[in-house]
Amino acid sequence: MTSDPDQKRQKPKERQERKERPALTRRRLLTTAGAAGAAGLAVGAPTGALAHSAATGDDGPALAEVGATAVPFHGTHQPGITTPMQAHGHLAAFDLAAAAGRREAAALLRRWSTLAAELMAGGTPDTDTGVARDAGPASLTVTIGFGGSFFDAVGLTGARPAALDPLPAFSADALDERRSNGDLWLQIGADDALVAFHALRTLQRAAGETAAVRWQMTGFNRSQGATARPMTTRNLMGQVDGTNNPRPEDDDFEARVFVPAGGDPAWMSGGSYAVVRRIRMLLDVWESRPLAEQERVMGRRKSNGAPLTGERETDPVDLEATGPDGTAVIAANAHVRVTAPETNGGAAMLRRPFSYHDGFRDDGAPDAGLLFVCWQADPLRGFVPVQRKLDRGDALSEFVRHEASALFAVPGGAAEGEYVGQELLEGG
Amino acid sequence: MTSDPDQKRQKPKERQERKERPALTRRRLLTTAGAAGAAGLAVGAPTGALAHSAATGDDGPALAEVGATAVPFHGTHQPGITTPMQAHGHLAAFDLAAAAGRREAAALLRRWSTLAAELMAGGTPDTDTGVARDAGPASLTVTIGFGGSFFDAVGLTGARPAALDPLPAFSADALDERRSNGDLWLQIGADDALVAFHALRTLQRAAGETAAVRWQMTGFNRSQGATARPMTTRNLMGQVDGTNNPRPEDDDFEARVFVPAGGDPAWMSGGSYAVVRRIRMLLDVWESRPLAEQERVMGRRKSNGAPLTGERETDPVDLEATGPDGTAVIAANAHVRVTAPETNGGAAMLRRPFSYHDGFRDDGAPDAGLLFVCWQADPLRGFVPVQRKLDRGDALSEFVRHEASALFAVPGGAAEGEYVGQELLEGG
Repeated sequence: MTSDPDQKRQKPKERQERKERPALTRRRLLTTAGAAGAAGLAVGAPTGALAHSAATGDDGPALAEVGATAVPFHGTHQPGITTPMQAHGHLAAFDLAAAAGRREAAALLRRWSTLAAELMAGGTPDTDTGVARDAGPASLTVTIGFGGSFFDAVGLTGARPAALDPLPAFSADALDERRSNGDLWLQIGADDALVAFHALRTLQRAAGETAAVRWQMTGFNRSQGATARPMTTRNLMGQVDGTNNPRPEDDDFEARVFVPAGGDPAWMSGGSYAVVRRIRMLLDVWESRPLAEQERVMGRRKSNGAPLTGERETDPVDLEATGPDGTAVIAANAHVRVTAPETNGGAAMLRRPFSYHDGFRDDGAPDAGLLFVCWQADPLRGFVPVQRKLDRGDALSEFVRHEASALFAVPGGAAEGEYVGQELLEGG
Repeated sequence: MTSDPDQKRQKPKERQERKERPALTRRRLLTTAGAAGAAGLAVGAPTGALAHSAATGDDGPALAEVGATAVPFHGTHQPGITTPMQAHGHLAAFDLAAAAGRREAAALLRRWSTLAAELMAGGTPDTDTGVARDAGPASLTVTIGFGGSFFDAVGLTGARPAALDPLPAFSADALDERRSNGDLWLQIGADDALVAFHALRTLQRAAGETAAVRWQMTGFNRSQGATARPMTTRNLMGQVDGTNNPRPEDDDFEARVFVPAGGDPAWMSGGSYAVVRRIRMLLDVWESRPLAEQERVMGRRKSNGAPLTGERETDPVDLEATGPDGTAVIAANAHVRVTAPETNGGAAMLRRPFSYHDGFRDDGAPDAGLLFVCWQADPLRGFVPVQRKLDRGDALSEFVRHEASALFAVPGGAAEGEYVGQELLEGG
């Protein structure tokens, strides 16, 4: 882009910035709880979210909008699945202690559910560390899942759903078992890093002697307000990511993403299955390829995510289109073709990833990529067939390594006074 | 806090959220460069910052305010010192290759300066990876410094300022040399994680064969808009952090933080010295202590950061106050007393840290703490005397470990067409 010549004439005035920025950039919200609900709508809190009112400092002004947004914990589905992607995320798997059984697991899930509801409403648990004080809930979500090994650990082997059968091995996998699987899983998201850390730490402490962290990964997405592109983000390859996601307004969205009411097993009604993959991007290799090759690999334009057969990101992908020489515009192994629902028997999953960057490797390449999280009613009709196809012929696979993998059953949301998984742990 | 009973009656409507949130929460800004300048003021861009206009997608609306804010690269001082703390930060040290001398170092500093100016204005370098596309500059700053070893590496040993003499050893140090020191230093901050990563990766690639990453650390602060507390943030101990920082409106602010014009050496005029310490917090230990003990250790209240002798965060600390039993209200080893400028011969530094969290250690404790960065005109009158005192009798030292340390000379800001350090590398 060309810069505005006027910019160059302006002198730095950072000393003024420091003083004036907070007062100018943050909007005051009303402070009473009832009024905050109305204010939330007025200033743009999402429908169904609650503007938060009472978590400011002892004598400070009310919260600004990023902090004020709350997502409800209780409901048909758990939060963090269709909730808009937050700027910060933690994925953490826990293994139950050898001495912990069904009773201890149930007590832990009750503690986690109670804390999650409180934290997501902007509350302060009794034993609070104070890290999240002053901020509001900042769209915090906590999502709780069960790995296949959980059922053996709590003596409920017979209750393990077939959908939790181990994922098939893919030829491109280079999985680190220490960062894969796990009895229990937490997905935490928030639009403030301190709020996200605080939730993770609070829930880890609440695990007490019952469960210990097996692995934990930290990720990020674009900040609220940093971009005008609302539905999609960029990944660390620079690609627009998420364009083809099923959308809640689609007729078959619920059926694809959530186990139906009265589903099998019954305790998964309203639940979903999450596939988690830590996918390292070989950025040194990817970035060495010219733009035209990158676009052939993806089947989309880098600039705006439009398919090579269209002009805008949301234009449908025309897999039949041919160029002047008669060859397909979207190559046979282009990522967008291999992953297209129409080439996978309609398989679709809701992708809701975070990017990650854990420093640099010894060879100087970033240890960075995607914390891929996808949601579906049945992994055998979502992730598995798509990944099988990717494994056989995806041009993108040259540039990525799957380094960790996990699959979790995420029950439906808890009702008030209940905890996530209660029907599983207390039924039968 | 108590929650509003009305909240409980609301049903989750996350499907609507997903659709409606972007349209409702993001404000449209004007799109032409001139108008954006005015709009920047209208919606709250900091004085001296430039609202950004042209980095949106091909056909998207204009940027929202978090993304639209730009900080100037050129000026008397480098950016990232008095710039308000951003939500995301990277600290990275580079060592020059054995074959790289003064000429190669100068070329690298010119490349870095050119790129930093372009990226901070929201521009897209020719070889761009695309990761920051769609977002604006998001208050990106790039700050460039020189370690003591740089001067030997480029054959300018005689030019090394005495202020870069190695810091004294402190008894509480447990330093990892591989994560300490370094020839060159970059500090990157931005209010969007993708923008920050993109800048780091772009500058790393620009180092080419001249320099390689020695160490790199990633940190975070509160998101813009997540809190109503504007001047200070919380650290991962839950403490309000930064209350006693010198403020730009103080008469002696410039003298404390920046080397004066015509300073010694001349190429450091307008520059500053940065001390970087990776300070791990022993959170398992800290969180086990009752609130009253934590407050005695700090000398401040956890709730709002007020000194134990006052009511509000900004109340002056009364080191003379005694309680009913005649003992000092602020204990002899309270952190606020040991660090007070009046007990350190007026020594003061501008603290501008990021928190960090790099997962969990084998014992389950978070590998988390503070990427402490402080700025001063002379480390021997800033960090060193304060740290010496802390080392001898700070109640907080039981709860922290200094694991890495570095000291960098950060020259004044570059003028248009010049690069950071040009006077050093091309003078004499």
